[in-house]
Amino acid sequence: MKLCDRESKPEGTLVDVRGVAVGGRTIVVMAGPCAVESAEQLLATARAVQASGASILRGGAFKPRTSPYSFQGLKEEGLELLKWVSREAGLPIVTEVMDTRRVEQVCAYSDMLQVGSRHMHSYPLLEEVGRTDKPVLLKRGMSATLDEFLFAAEYVLNAGNEQVVLCERGIRTFEQSTRNTLDLNAVPVLKRLTHLPVIVDPSHGTGHRWMVPWMSRGAVAVGADGLLVEVHPDPDAALSDGAQSLKPEQFDAMMREVRAVAEAVGRTVAHPLYARD
Amino acid sequence: MKLCDRESKPEGTLVDVRGVAVGGRTIVVMAGPCAVESAEQLLATARAVQASGASILRGGAFKPRTSPYSFQGLKEEGLELLKWVSREAGLPIVTEVMDTRRVEQVCAYSDMLQVGSRHMHSYPLLEEVGRTDKPVLLKRGMSATLDEFLFAAEYVLNAGNEQVVLCERGIRTFEQSTRNTLDLNAVPVLKRLTHLPVIVDPSHGTGHRWMVPWMSRGAVAVGADGLLVEVHPDPDAALSDGAQSLKPEQFDAMMREVRAVAEAVGRTVAHPLYARD
Amino acid sequence: MKLCDRESKPEGTLVDVRGVAVGGRTIVVMAGPCAVESAEQLLATARAVQASGASILRGGAFKPRTSPYSFQGLKEEGLELLKWVSREAGLPIVTEVMDTRRVEQVCAYSDMLQVGSRHMHSYPLLEEVGRTDKPVLLKRGMSATLDEFLFAAEYVLNAGNEQVVLCERGIRTFEQSTRNTLDLNAVPVLKRLTHLPVIVDPSHGTGHRWMVPWMSRGAVAVGADGLLVEVHPDPDAALSDGAQSLKPEQFDAMMREVRAVAEAVGRTVAHPLYARD
Amino acid sequence: MKLCDRESKPEGTLVDVRGVAVGGRTIVVMAGPCAVESAEQLLATARAVQASGASILRGGAFKPRTSPYSFQGLKEEGLELLKWVSREAGLPIVTEVMDTRRVEQVCAYSDMLQVGSRHMHSYPLLEEVGRTDKPVLLKRGMSATLDEFLFAAEYVLNAGNEQVVLCERGIRTFEQSTRNTLDLNAVPVLKRLTHLPVIVDPSHGTGHRWMVPWMSRGAVAVGADGLLVEVHPDPDAALSDGAQSLKPEQFDAMMREVRAVAEAVGRTVAHPLYARD
Repeated sequence: MKLCDRESKPEGTLVDVRGVAVGGRTIVVMAGPCAVESAEQLLATARAVQASGASILRGGAFKPRTSPYSFQGLKEEGLELLKWVSREAGLPIVTEVMDTRRVEQVCAYSDMLQVGSRHMHSYPLLEEVGRTDKPVLLKRGMSATLDEFLFAAEYVLNAGNEQVVLCERGIRTFEQSTRNTLDLNAVPVLKRLTHLPVIVDPSHGTGHRWMVPWMSRGAVAVGADGLLVEVHPDPDAALSDGAQSLKPEQFDAMMREVRAVAEAVGRTVAHPLYARD
Repeated sequence: MKLCDRESKPEGTLVDVRGVAVGGRTIVVMAGPCAVESAEQLLATARAVQASGASILRGGAFKPRTSPYSFQGLKEEGLELLKWVSREAGLPIVTEVMDTRRVEQVCAYSDMLQVGSRHMHSYPLLEEVGRTDKPVLLKRGMSATLDEFLFAAEYVLNAGNEQVVLCERGIRTFEQSTRNTLDLNAVPVLKRLTHLPVIVDPSHGTGHRWMVPWMSRGAVAVGADGLLVEVHPDPDAALSDGAQSLKPEQFDAMMREVRAVAEAVGRTVAHPLYARD
Repeated sequence: MKLCDRESKPEGTLVDVRGVAVGGRTIVVMAGPCAVESAEQLLATARAVQASGASILRGGAFKPRTSPYSFQGLKEEGLELLKWVSREAGLPIVTEVMDTRRVEQVCAYSDMLQVGSRHMHSYPLLEEVGRTDKPVLLKRGMSATLDEFLFAAEYVLNAGNEQVVLCERGIRTFEQSTRNTLDLNAVPVLKRLTHLPVIVDPSHGTGHRWMVPWMSRGAVAVGADGLLVEVHPDPDAALSDGAQSLKPEQFDAMMREVRAVAEAVGRTVAHPLYARD
Repeated sequence: MKLCDRESKPEGTLVDVRGVAVGGRTIVVMAGPCAVESAEQLLATARAVQASGASILRGGAFKPRTSPYSFQGLKEEGLELLKWVSREAGLPIVTEVMDTRRVEQVCAYSDMLQVGSRHMHSYPLLEEVGRTDKPVLLKRGMSATLDEFLFAAEYVLNAGNEQVVLCERGIRTFEQSTRNTLDLNAVPVLKRLTHLPVIVDPSHGTGHRWMVPWMSRGAVAVGADGLLVEVHPDPDAALSDGAQSLKPEQFDAMMREVRAVAEAVGRTVAHPLYARD
C-alpha cells in the first residue's frame, strides 16, 4: 500500500495553505496571472479575484517556456512582488519551482510550492519539495498515466511531506481544437484511489478563454476540490498565455456559475461578501 | 460554410424523436441495455428507466463486436423485441445500424438510427441514413477529431436529413484506467461550431459503472443536451458491456443528481411524475 | 486460438494476387495513384511503376473523403479504367470497397479488395469480403490496437477467406509534423502474432512525399513483406493526396534504395529487367 | 532561425565523445546496462559490447524510477565504477544526470551527459548542461512534439554548448503491445530540420528484447546516426529493465545485421576487429 492510497487515510487529507483548507466541503479557487509582470498587474488581479471569491493567488516568477527566447519570468523580482501583493491583499500565494537549487528560496516567499507538468517526473525535485514544510501543488504530466501521477505524489509523501494537492491540467491527444484535452475523468478516478485533494486547471487544460467557465462547471460537477484559473487584467497584453486568461469580469461571472453547480452537488465556494469580512 | 455550421442556423436544431425534442432546454436521457437479450430483460429495463425519467429507450439488435466469436446481437429478433417493448412502454427507441443493406429494415422498426463509433467514417452508410426520414444519432469515432466528426454529420445533412444528434463517447488516449477517455471538452466546442444537439455517453466513455453518475453530472454541467446511458436489470449477467451498465436503482439515484445539476445550469430533465401523466 | 494466429500456421500464408505471391521471400510493391482520374493518368502510372519493379497496381475508384464536397472517385467508370489498364499493362490491381452492396461489383473488376482504415471496424463489410474468393488487403484502423487489427482479419478468415494481407498505414498520435505516425513496430509484432503477410503504406503513414523513400527502407528493414506506395505522373495536379505521391522518377530511385536494403536483410524485390521479360 | 536549425549549419554537426565522432558516415553504437549494478557486471558488459563493435558505454548511476520504492541506482558509487570500467575497457561513457546540483559531479566522471526523457522539459537542467564542456545526449520527452524536442536542444545550444546528440526513444500512444511506440519517422524529420546528430533507443522504444534487433535495423535504414542499446550479461537478474536488455551474444548477432543494413544505405558501423587494433 502506498502512502497516498485512499485506504491509508479513508477520511481524506485536508491541505492547509496558510489558513485555507483544500480538500474539504468548500471548493477552493486559486486564480491569478500566468506570469507575474508588474506590481500593478499583480495587485489589480489579486484584488479582483479575491472580490469574486478566490482564496489563493497564483502567479509565476520562474516560467518554464518551450522556447529559450520567450519571456522566462521576473525570477527573484517576481518572488518579491508575489510576497508584497500577498501581504497587501491578504491572500496566500502559490508559485512554481523548477530547480532543486531554488526550493529553499521559493519557500521563503511562497505559501505553496507548485511542481509543474513538465517536472512531474523530476524525482529529485519531488524529493526536495518533500523535505520542506510547505504544501505542494503537483500538476499531472502532459502524458502521465494516473498511476504515474500518484507515484510522483508518493515521492513527496515518502520524503516526509503529506500536504500535497493533485492538479489535472489536460493531457496530450490527437485532438487539436483545444491546447490539451482536459481529462475530467481523472477527478473521480483519483478521488477513489487517493486521499489527497484533487483540483482542475481549465486554463491550460483547454487553452481557450471562452471554454474556462464551461469546464470549471464540469470540474466541480465531477467532484473537484478546487480550481486553478488564469486571470489577467488585460489578457491581450499578457506576456504569456493571454489566450487562455479570463478578464476579471469574466472570472466574476464564472464564479457565480460555479457556485450554483457547487451547491447542486452539496459543496460550497467561498462567498466574496463573507471572504471580505 | 457547411450545412451543420452554427452560423447557418444560429438558433439551434431541435431533433424530434417521435415526439421527444432533443436540443431544447430539457435534457433528454436515452437509456437501456447495451444489447437486446430477451423480452423480459428489455421490458423490465424500459419500465425502470422510464420511471426514473428517461425519454428514449436504447438497445442493440446488431452489435459490432471486436471478436467475431462474441455475441453479435439478436438481429431481426432483437428489432421485433424493440418494437414490441416500445409500444408496451410508450417509449421511442434508438438502435444501431451498421450495414447499408439493413438501413431500410432498421427504419421499419426504430424511431432513431444510431451510427456507432466504428462506422462514423463509413460514408456510404452516412449517406444512406441521410436519405431516410428518421433522426440519426451519430457517435464520434474513437479517434476522430471534432472537425472530422462534423464532416461526418455533414454527409448526413448533405444527403437531405437535418435531424442529427451528435454523441461524444470517449476517445483513444494513452490512459488505461478508463476504457476510453470521455472528452467533455467536445461538448462546448461542438455546441459553438454547430447547431446540432450534442449528447454524451458516459458508459462507453469510461467503461466503469461507478463513474457513470459522476461523468453524467459533468456532461450536463458543460452543456450537453442529453445522455446515453447503459442500464441492465442484472449487469453481471449481461451478454455485453456489463461492467459499465448501471442497475435500475443506481440509474434512478443518478437521475436525481443529474436533475440537480441541470437546474443549476438553467436546464431541466423530464420528471418521472410528469412523464407518467 | 484464432484462425489468424501464427501457431495455427507457423510456416506463414502466401497470398496469391493473380499470380503475384505476397508473403514470401520476395517483397511485393503495390503502387499507383491515390485515385483513378483518367485513362492516360492510370496507364502512364502503371507502365512507369511496372518498369521500376512494382508488381501490383493500386488505384481508388471509390474514395472515402473526410468532406462530402471533396472528389469521391470516378466510381464505376474508375473500375472500368482499372480493368482496362490492368489488361494493357499486365498488372493485377487492388482497389477499395466501402459498401457491402458494392462487394460483388468490385470483385468483377478487381484482383484484390482493399478494406480501408476507415472501415477496419466495419464487421458486415469484413464478413462480406470474407465470403468472396478475392484476396483482401486490410488496412489498420487509425487508432486500432494490433489486437483489434488481428480480430478484424479474423472476421474475414472466419467467413471463409484466408487470403488476407495486413497493412500498417500510420496511427493517430499527438505528433503533428507528419499526417499520421507510421508505426513500424507493428511489423515485427504482427509477424510474430500472425501467419498473414504484413505490408506498409508509407504514403498515408507520413503524408510527405520526401519521407516515403526513407520509411520504405525502414519498412523493409523491419521485416515488411511489401509496400503500398502512391505514385502520380503529376502530383501537384492530383485530385487527392498529391502531397504524399511520388513522381515516377522518384519512385524509381526509391526502388533502387529499397532493393539494396532488401538484399541486406536476405530478401529480394522483383527486378524490372526480369519483370519485363 | 534557431541555432539548431539545419540551415544554420547545412554540413551537419559532428559531436566528439572523447574521440568518438557522432554524426558522420560511421554509425555509433552506445551499449551497456540500464543501471550500473557492480564492477563485474559493468566490466563484463563493457568488454562484450566493445568486442561486438560498440564505441561508447552506457550505464545509469542515478536512475529515474516511477516508484520511489524501486532501485534508484548506485549513485556516487555507480559513477566511480563507470569511470573505472571506462579506463579498463578504453571506452568513453555516457550517463544520466537529473539534478542541476549534480551536473558538476557527473561531469567529473563522465564523457557525455544524458538528459533523459523525463527531464527533456526541465529547462534549468538543460541550461546547466549547456554551460559545461561535455557533449550532451538529449532524449525526446515521452509526449514531446519534434518542435518541442528541438526547442529543448536549443536551450543547450543557447547556453553555449553545441555538442548535442538527439535521441528518439518512443512516444506515448494508445497501443499497448509495446512499452512505447518507437517513432522512426522522427529520424528523417529531425535530420531535415536540424544539423544535430540523431540516434535511436530501440530498448526503451519497444520494451521487448526480441524487438530490439528488428527496430535497430529499421533505425539505421531510416538514417539514424547511432543506436543506444541496453545489454546485460544476465537480463533476468537485472535490477531494472531486464525485459528489454539483450544478452551479449544477442547483441553480437544484432550488430552483424545492423552492419549489413548500414552498408546497404552507404554507412558503416565500427568493426570489432579494427576497433580492437
